[in-house]
Amino acid sequence: MREPILLTPGPLTTSLATKAAMLVDWGSWDAKFNALTASVCADLLRIANLGDGYVCVPLQGSGTFAVEAAIGSLVPKDREILVLVNGAYGQRMAKIATVMGRKVSVLAVSDGTPVSAAAVAEALAANPAISHVGMIHCETATGLLNPVAEVAAVVQAAGRALILDSMSAFGALPVDGLPVDAVISSANKCLEGVPGMGFVIVKQSALVQGQSPSLSLDLCDQFEYMQKTGQWRFTPPTHVVAAFRAALDQYWAEGGQPARLARYQANGDALLAGMKKLGLQSFLPADLQAPIIYTFFAPHHPGYDFQRFYQAVRARGFLLYPGKLTEVETFRVGCIGAIDQAEIQQAIAVIAEVLAELGWSD
Amino acid sequence: MREPILLTPGPLTTSLATKAAMLVDWGSWDAKFNALTASVCADLLRIANLGDGYVCVPLQGSGTFAVEAAIGSLVPKDREILVLVNGAYGQRMAKIATVMGRKVSVLAVSDGTPVSAAAVAEALAANPAISHVGMIHCETATGLLNPVAEVAAVVQAAGRALILDSMSAFGALPVDGLPVDAVISSANKCLEGVPGMGFVIVKQSALVQGQSPSLSLDLCDQFEYMQKTGQWRFTPPTHVVAAFRAALDQYWAEGGQPARLARYQANGDALLAGMKKLGLQSFLPADLQAPIIYTFFAPHHPGYDFQRFYQAVRARGFLLYPGKLTEVETFRVGCIGAIDQAEIQQAIAVIAEVLAELGWSD
Ligand SMILES: Cc1ncc(COP(=O)(O)O)c(C=O)c1O
Ligand SMILES: Cc1ncc(COP(=O)(O)O)c(C=O)c1O
Repeated sequence: MREPILLTPGPLTTSLATKAAMLVDWGSWDAKFNALTASVCADLLRIANLGDGYVCVPLQGSGTFAVEAAIGSLVPKDREILVLVNGAYGQRMAKIATVMGRKVSVLAVSDGTPVSAAAVAEALAANPAISHVGMIHCETATGLLNPVAEVAAVVQAAGRALILDSMSAFGALPVDGLPVDAVISSANKCLEGVPGMGFVIVKQSALVQGQSPSLSLDLCDQFEYMQKTGQWRFTPPTHVVAAFRAALDQYWAEGGQPARLARYQANGDALLAGMKKLGLQSFLPADLQAPIIYTFFAPHHPGYDFQRFYQAVRARGFLLYPGKLTEVETFRVGCIGAIDQAEIQQAIAVIAEVLAELGWSD
Repeated sequence: MREPILLTPGPLTTSLATKAAMLVDWGSWDAKFNALTASVCADLLRIANLGDGYVCVPLQGSGTFAVEAAIGSLVPKDREILVLVNGAYGQRMAKIATVMGRKVSVLAVSDGTPVSAAAVAEALAANPAISHVGMIHCETATGLLNPVAEVAAVVQAAGRALILDSMSAFGALPVDGLPVDAVISSANKCLEGVPGMGFVIVKQSALVQGQSPSLSLDLCDQFEYMQKTGQWRFTPPTHVVAAFRAALDQYWAEGGQPARLARYQANGDALLAGMKKLGLQSFLPADLQAPIIYTFFAPHHPGYDFQRFYQAVRARGFLLYPGKLTEVETFRVGCIGAIDQAEIQQAIAVIAEVLAELGWSD
């Protein structure tokens, strides 16, 4: 049987052209590889479209490493970060800042509730020690789209800096012209590269030497070295970078951000409609849903068990994702990656078959 | 023309079988991928052969990330690490510990001089605050093999713990039975995987929750999560892990550590002999040289320029490495990776041709 299709938001299904770009070894000291890195960074800046004064700093590791690098490199040791939490990735951001010893305050609402710009304004007015606000663009734990433009405006008005974790949204949902200090994402989400590197699009003036509590995760050092030499400071994941280049070529060929978003939106609409027919209810109302990953309530049947569900769907060629909510039993289906409505329709047919077989249909 | 052969110690030349293993997408939540990770870790423990009580913790990112993770996760915040320095990677280890705020003392000798076990014994006797000693197995900046067994014995006798950066040696040079707390390496050196992950073979009893100043680089947290779930905490570089599995299969097929070392030794011997014939002198005496990477004095010609040399050799299909010494003009040639004496002989012929063409022959 063919390898399963990943309906998971990273690792996700990538095209064969993207994977085939990994069939070459690159020297990390070589001008050809430096040009590869530079072209990837230039494309990421172009996608971000934040205006002048921003640079792109790539970083080895998973997306979490890039989030930690941004916080450690940007938030001064004696200041405080306010983290907006409505799910697991907001919680993780607060934890990252806490572990590195930064002062952290948290503004939390329940999963499925968007963060509130008015509440942010209040919190900032009440606490002058806060220099930075951290927020999640699409909270992948549920699939919720946070009101980034509103929050960014409030943070700017209060004279503070915004760090935006746009991991699962960047490239599909625009960040154009947002007043942010840093936008974080990785190769392996909406840009459809393979996992192994993240990146931070950051205001160059925000990069200050000696602020990071980590050498490996020091964005300023990484940027300055790269600017001087064209090279990464430490061994880059050369094959992952080459795959990312190929994935970006396909991104532009598809039509860039509007086309990527349109495909994901069509995937998501088809998914919602198909699941509804099967009696599977979406956790989020439509107006809060980003077209990235969808959370569904588990079938109401008392015998339901995610592992059995997962294995049965897997045996038919699709990988689902477990839920990330603590209070309700859910599962998640991603609609990003090198997949189209054809794969979504096949997945829905498979889920229907599995529910019938396991006796969990309504 | 074919892609160039990398005579650089990471990224290095990998086999097509290793790269072809990256043509599949893996779900990070999938039991099949968990089994892949577990089998890679089991193999690494088997190669290390340190005895009972050790575990293998893989980590996303380059080798430096794994070094930082080991120091941050193992050295208590109120203790001190003594770093033995005789080259750039020893210096980097000291810098990593300094940046994360650990107390650091440095025992430095000149490049090309092995660290001294007697001096370590003295330094440990004089300073009871030191809990850990950090050292480099093969100092890749020169190619020097440090006396690991002697230093390890002295550190053990003094009741302290040794953290060994065996990045460029592990898999070729044995660490069997060494009394160490941690051995660090990466997929992309003597094990001939692709870059994107490192690993630490660590005494399980040395892993303590809450010690690491970083969430991303917390070895204890990574280990405990993996033990509980079989999964990496954050998105793993799935394709890199799959390539590593393929590279390890080839490692065993070749005959494991003795065979790997024998091939590298034969490569190195051929390299030294060939370069000698061209009048190019090795920086290290034979008894200090590890069969990993070789430093050569640059041709004595006044017009010598590494960039021109590099480009001319590159145009003929081989990538060299610049020197990493500050006082003398050198260049480096790696003899690790999926290469044999055939490639070494071809490279020597190319270097001879280039020196003649540029008028730099003696
Ligand atoms: C919003 C968000 N932030 C952070 C991360 C962490 O990224 P990684 O798993 O690559 O470390 C993810 C991963 O899905 C995410 O969706
Ligand atoms: C001895 C040693 N330590 C650390 C490193 C750093 O590894 P990386 O470049 O993968 O970060 C290297 C890389 O060559 C090395 O040789």
